[in-house]
Amino acid sequence: MLGKLTLIGCGPGASDLLTIRAARRIGEADIVFHDRLVEADVLEFASPAATLQYVGKKCTDGGRQQTDINSMLRGALLAGRHVARLKSGDPMIFGRAAEEIAVAVELGAEIEIVPGVTAALAAAAECSIPVTERAELQSFVVTTGRSANKDKEPDWANLLKPGICVAFYMSVAQAWRIQTALMARGVPGSLQAEWVENVGKPDCRRVETRLDRLALDARQHRVRNPAILFIRYPLSATNVEVIPAPADGMTI
Amino acid sequence: MLGKLTLIGCGPGASDLLTIRAARRIGEADIVFHDRLVEADVLEFASPAATLQYVGKKCTDGGRQQTDINSMLRGALLAGRHVARLKSGDPMIFGRAAEEIAVAVELGAEIEIVPGVTAALAAAAECSIPVTERAELQSFVVTTGRSANKDKEPDWANLLKPGICVAFYMSVAQAWRIQTALMARGVPGSLQAEWVENVGKPDCRRVETRLDRLALDARQHRVRNPAILFIRYPLSATNVEVIPAPADGMTI
Repeated sequence: MLGKLTLIGCGPGASDLLTIRAARRIGEADIVFHDRLVEADVLEFASPAATLQYVGKKCTDGGRQQTDINSMLRGALLAGRHVARLKSGDPMIFGRAAEEIAVAVELGAEIEIVPGVTAALAAAAECSIPVTERAELQSFVVTTGRSANKDKEPDWANLLKPGICVAFYMSVAQAWRIQTALMARGVPGSLQAEWVENVGKPDCRRVETRLDRLALDARQHRVRNPAILFIRYPLSATNVEVIPAPADGMTI
Repeated sequence: MLGKLTLIGCGPGASDLLTIRAARRIGEADIVFHDRLVEADVLEFASPAATLQYVGKKCTDGGRQQTDINSMLRGALLAGRHVARLKSGDPMIFGRAAEEIAVAVELGAEIEIVPGVTAALAAAAECSIPVTERAELQSFVVTTGRSANKDKEPDWANLLKPGICVAFYMSVAQAWRIQTALMARGVPGSLQAEWVENVGKPDCRRVETRLDRLALDARQHRVRNPAILFIRYPLSATNVEVIPAPADGMTI
């Protein structure tokens, strides 16, 4: 008898930003796979009889790789267990969901996916940043500063056009490259931008900046991941003057 | 004594896709502004003592305009009421949030924004469509088929590049224009696409299609709004052959 996989979006941190369905599904599972991105109080929704299985990975501690998580998942499903796999934010955005879904599909196990509040939208709510705006911002882009392959990183300069708001995940280390890539393509350096650090947590912090000060402000205000970077390019900003990057940004 | 505005994302339909915070905040309000996009059972979270105020607008019935909603909101805040303004999905995405926030800011009233599960992510979860994928899809774009001004509609062809998944809101009527705009720029007609209708509701329906059949399949399967259109352009698809639109699509 095969088990069941429930991939659950847990939102950005605060346990009351889980959906009601997410909280219920956690309570129904008999094994809960969690990692360091999911807050401890989310685990309180689990049944007292459930096994809590930490499957965290971290670049720097030689932690588990995705292939190890996939193996553990396969084992639990073959053992007939109902696995709740907790994901920070929404499972379909930067959650490696495709790989874990593939494990369950290959076995023929039942799958349910519970959506969650993705970090960018939680940050937008917390800091009152509308990511679309009538007649000004018609598209919203979510992208990442990190990619599986250095050569295949997103073409950031191609994403930010007039009428678009972009949210960059995991991009603190790329601030200078994002800033220069965009400005080299003529995106105005005066565009309003925001760093939002520790979204959904009590120490959430907003650092207002502008495109030509991205890296400088990240350094001066010691912005750390997890942080979301917003850059808004309203249609009405298309005629603003292009301002070169300040010279002190060069030292980043 | 000024009132308080709580803008609340209610998710795509199912009441268990509200966050726990959203359900609580609805219960704390003394007046609840709702419209036809929010399901009736969401209103059950309201306090029995609260006033339920319908503020729906509909293009075709001469319903309320945004300016009327803004006036009602201003009146309630001046009367010292705690207003829960319910929004379908997430308030910051296509929710006209900026205008309602401006009303409260102008008065100096307290504002809280509660994020929600936006329709595209609920659809992605329901239909198992990862919108990002390691080494294949690094960016996710949300855009609309409708815009405030015909001349300022999003430049769809510029949004869909290799490595990007786009979700189009409110786009059934624009299917043929989206299809031709993208294919004219060389986007392969064989790209996988999906219509997802009535997300989060019991009659949710998925229609699998491809870029060169968007309009045809929308017509043949009678896809109706509210529907989300997904088009995925994985990096590995950049070398696929460009297939012209089928001749029968021409009759759309």
